[in-house]
Amino acid sequence: VIRIKNHMAIPELSHVDLTPAEAANVTEVIEKTPAAVLGSRLFQPEDTIIELPHSIIGGKGHFTMMAGPCSVESEAHLRKMAKVAREGGATILRGGAYKPRTSPYSFQGLGEAGLKYLREAADENGMDVITEVMDEDHVDLIAKYTDVFQIGARNMQNFSLLKAVGKTRVPVALKRGMAGSIDDLLNASEYIAAGGNHQIMLLERGVRTFDNKYTRNTFDLAAVPVLQKLTHYPVIVDPSHAVGVWDLVTPMAHAGVASGASGMIVEIHDDPEHAFSDGPQALKPDTYKKMTKEVFEMRRLMDSWEA
Amino acid sequence: VIRIKNHMAIPELSHVDLTPAEAANVTEVIEKTPAAVLGSRLFQPEDTIIELPHSIIGGKGHFTMMAGPCSVESEAHLRKMAKVAREGGATILRGGAYKPRTSPYSFQGLGEAGLKYLREAADENGMDVITEVMDEDHVDLIAKYTDVFQIGARNMQNFSLLKAVGKTRVPVALKRGMAGSIDDLLNASEYIAAGGNHQIMLLERGVRTFDNKYTRNTFDLAAVPVLQKLTHYPVIVDPSHAVGVWDLVTPMAHAGVASGASGMIVEIHDDPEHAFSDGPQALKPDTYKKMTKEVFEMRRLMDSWEA
Amino acid sequence: VIRIKNHMAIPELSHVDLTPAEAANVTEVIEKTPAAVLGSRLFQPEDTIIELPHSIIGGKGHFTMMAGPCSVESEAHLRKMAKVAREGGATILRGGAYKPRTSPYSFQGLGEAGLKYLREAADENGMDVITEVMDEDHVDLIAKYTDVFQIGARNMQNFSLLKAVGKTRVPVALKRGMAGSIDDLLNASEYIAAGGNHQIMLLERGVRTFDNKYTRNTFDLAAVPVLQKLTHYPVIVDPSHAVGVWDLVTPMAHAGVASGASGMIVEIHDDPEHAFSDGPQALKPDTYKKMTKEVFEMRRLMDSWEA
Amino acid sequence: VIRIKNHMAIPELSHVDLTPAEAANVTEVIEKTPAAVLGSRLFQPEDTIIELPHSIIGGKGHFTMMAGPCSVESEAHLRKMAKVAREGGATILRGGAYKPRTSPYSFQGLGEAGLKYLREAADENGMDVITEVMDEDHVDLIAKYTDVFQIGARNMQNFSLLKAVGKTRVPVALKRGMAGSIDDLLNASEYIAAGGNHQIMLLERGVRTFDNKYTRNTFDLAAVPVLQKLTHYPVIVDPSHAVGVWDLVTPMAHAGVASGASGMIVEIHDDPEHAFSDGPQALKPDTYKKMTKEVFEMRRLMDSWEA
Repeated sequence: VIRIKNHMAIPELSHVDLTPAEAANVTEVIEKTPAAVLGSRLFQPEDTIIELPHSIIGGKGHFTMMAGPCSVESEAHLRKMAKVAREGGATILRGGAYKPRTSPYSFQGLGEAGLKYLREAADENGMDVITEVMDEDHVDLIAKYTDVFQIGARNMQNFSLLKAVGKTRVPVALKRGMAGSIDDLLNASEYIAAGGNHQIMLLERGVRTFDNKYTRNTFDLAAVPVLQKLTHYPVIVDPSHAVGVWDLVTPMAHAGVASGASGMIVEIHDDPEHAFSDGPQALKPDTYKKMTKEVFEMRRLMDSWEA
Repeated sequence: VIRIKNHMAIPELSHVDLTPAEAANVTEVIEKTPAAVLGSRLFQPEDTIIELPHSIIGGKGHFTMMAGPCSVESEAHLRKMAKVAREGGATILRGGAYKPRTSPYSFQGLGEAGLKYLREAADENGMDVITEVMDEDHVDLIAKYTDVFQIGARNMQNFSLLKAVGKTRVPVALKRGMAGSIDDLLNASEYIAAGGNHQIMLLERGVRTFDNKYTRNTFDLAAVPVLQKLTHYPVIVDPSHAVGVWDLVTPMAHAGVASGASGMIVEIHDDPEHAFSDGPQALKPDTYKKMTKEVFEMRRLMDSWEA
Repeated sequence: VIRIKNHMAIPELSHVDLTPAEAANVTEVIEKTPAAVLGSRLFQPEDTIIELPHSIIGGKGHFTMMAGPCSVESEAHLRKMAKVAREGGATILRGGAYKPRTSPYSFQGLGEAGLKYLREAADENGMDVITEVMDEDHVDLIAKYTDVFQIGARNMQNFSLLKAVGKTRVPVALKRGMAGSIDDLLNASEYIAAGGNHQIMLLERGVRTFDNKYTRNTFDLAAVPVLQKLTHYPVIVDPSHAVGVWDLVTPMAHAGVASGASGMIVEIHDDPEHAFSDGPQALKPDTYKKMTKEVFEMRRLMDSWEA
Repeated sequence: VIRIKNHMAIPELSHVDLTPAEAANVTEVIEKTPAAVLGSRLFQPEDTIIELPHSIIGGKGHFTMMAGPCSVESEAHLRKMAKVAREGGATILRGGAYKPRTSPYSFQGLGEAGLKYLREAADENGMDVITEVMDEDHVDLIAKYTDVFQIGARNMQNFSLLKAVGKTRVPVALKRGMAGSIDDLLNASEYIAAGGNHQIMLLERGVRTFDNKYTRNTFDLAAVPVLQKLTHYPVIVDPSHAVGVWDLVTPMAHAGVASGASGMIVEIHDDPEHAFSDGPQALKPDTYKKMTKEVFEMRRLMDSWEA
């Protein structure tokens, strides 16, 4: 039995023995519900809005920029990047302290030191922090430093991890997996919500298709309005991982805001060739600031249509 | 040997016996050329611009709207739809007279009668015509009525058809196939160009992926800037076929113009439920006009950044 | 209205005005029929068996081997390859006289001369011929030389071509497109059948997926039993194009016969490095003969289970 | 620096400062190594063979059958199924005690009780146990009961979990993810090997593609010989999850053994309609026993070719 605001959802009612008194209180039986009831607009038509000290994510009139380097590389470098991120209008600082790398021989992140640098650089610039959690044993530690947990694409269906962050009250940004269908993503988010944590945002970051010569993934921007029809959670786009090549990031950032997303997360670096990870997709500071200026202008234009 | 403006490209030079005089005239050997040399920016850096009586496609400062019903249904209906299309800013009227339908038992189009209605309705409204050619034996007939040949996604690698339209001097809009890679699309366009027809535009209309529950295809908008880097041909987006559901067309039209495309083709219908084909993806007149107004505003905003 | 043996299928009965007399003769209304009724097991439970002078395709107790070079390269070479093909147990000689090449600058085939060489080499070895038709204008010409038309993957939904071969009475081998779903393939075959040509076989040759580093396509062998449930047409596998690398062909040929296919088509060449096309996937004569010996043994073992 | 038998691999040698003495001991620099060096045939040409009390996995002359219900449902049911599995020639009993379910509201497994039933049922029938671990915190607990850890497709790139099982000396069966490329799978296995656990087998269970109407996934059998070229680890096929429909399992089991795999894992159930999970793909006992008899016969035929 699942309580959703003033509704109570009972998956597979036929399997449940209701007492006569309970049965009398059933006012409506919705035969066809989505599996992910807590995330469904059917039960909660109004948008979920996530409020952080420096940012509001979701709802009308807000567009949230999140930016930072792929990996936290050093305290000094992160401070520099946080300043750039903030100057471009970002209110959330991203950076990986624990990195999910394809090969075990690649740089795996600075760990707790990286978390400290993130917190400090964010505080210094009046920003919130988003950082990835890969391991349920790190949940408590990372919760001490971050404002938002990021669950990476490779862990979209790591159900143990989803349950672990679902027990916290820290907002979660859940990335769509490389082969994750829309329904898979919603069901994965339901693992978090079922634990009592309803502060969820969903990230589109490209899916894996047959065409990966010129882009790392295929950016599925139609997922933005599709998800917005089905769920009340904010939808965020990640053009950096979607394309994997810096000079495609700006047009895809434009397309991303135009698709109606509630926010964007991008990777920046002042010296991409020497970045510890994902250098080829990082925007340099000037390119980043031009891009965000344009993205905010586009969002304002779109706001004018809805007014 | 391929002549490209003031260049001459010799694929696989090692296979060619040059006379000493010829060899002496080789000024540069580019070892790594793309297979599709005629379409490559390497040999022609400037944009191909296609000029029609009422439209300019490609280059800076132009955004071309193409609209109309999926199928030509009747003379009266088409005239009505052409008027709507024009009111929304379209300068090219689309409509299928020969329809590529998955099943042989579905409506196959009105044939030459449909072509006549297209021509008349376009002329009446000061518009150009785009219509699909599926059959090399129809090339001459259709050329009498249309301003642009459309080659459908299912025929992207119908090389006999590509050669046939390559022999004409009618502009060709080549749609990317459902499993067409970027390179496949460029090589397919080269079949047209190799025949001497360089008036080519490329259409992104979604590719087939694992996720087709909520959208018909996956709209690959990163293909727009990718193609623009590789080729000088204009790139057009088709949000209607990409998503297949009308209420996703507007956000994807926004995303499409934001991606930097040179134009857009959309399907409209005043009574989608009774459309002869693809009703679910057709925009009603009012939705269409709101969408195009917004798309043109977005394009103007983007133009202001480049000025 | 479609006549199938002693059935008559009326797609979308609700759209048909039957006279009272006609309505009285309707003995059964099957609400849910597949779109491709002529190919469906629902209306024809027994296997389609295609009988050629030297080969029987389909039904129990037959496994048909088809082999030959990718392209017809010369008269002498083809005679040599035909002899090898026959020694390995093939009764159908394959070879391309008209080649669908990704690039217009690649070898496009010998044309009618190639057809003559095919017919002669086949006759000399007591074999039938299969060769690709890419162009509806070639249908009559090719029909003079071949026993089976092959429709390539890129033309699976070239509906004009399908209609053209549907008007002949020459058997057709229809290849599944790179993004062709099972339903697409059945609907495409229906275009041929609707023209009155019921001598159809379906070829699985791999589909396009995200993983194409080590194989050209992904060989979808489950399509064999899936198609055998849905349709009465024989299903043939093409391991050469599925994998694109010769040393994977033998294990995939084993897997192909084990999946229950009615036959197999493979590419052979005595000097793959100098083949005009697709050399990397060609089997050398000795490898080919070892493979076919094993494939026939496997088929005999499987026959023993059904006896 | 990675030690592999008598080799030492130094990824990215240019990044390493060797002392002159060390440099003098470098006997060979292999410029192009795969990222997953420990699993590569380049450094270990001979097959990895995993020896369990009742089973040998890998190498020539062994084909290992693994069977059991999808979920452990009850002690009595499991004992019944274990007996059936053993009668069909399986020497490893499968069964899920912790289940990775798409929805949080689906049955999640019996937990430790399920593990006990598995151990007892296996011991009673002279079998080994394979069961899934989803959570690094369960590694020690499950190690007490199982002979082989299974890592599910959704956790293929759950690097924390891979590291955790890499620290044990319990053999690991790593399933390919739904969008896992061959290289991704090898790199994931390297996370286990880098921890010192070299007892690894790789499972092909189908990948996600555009065609999922008639099968759950697309069974990529070419992955078997591809992996066998690249790595020394045994490759196992899982036809049940690949197709998801019981009547396709037998032909795909035939194709699986024919592809050259070292073993197979299948799901069985005596009452599939009431199975707690994945009933539609379970084989009933008689179908299972006929299938395994045929699979072993096919394997013996193949052994005769290599003798």
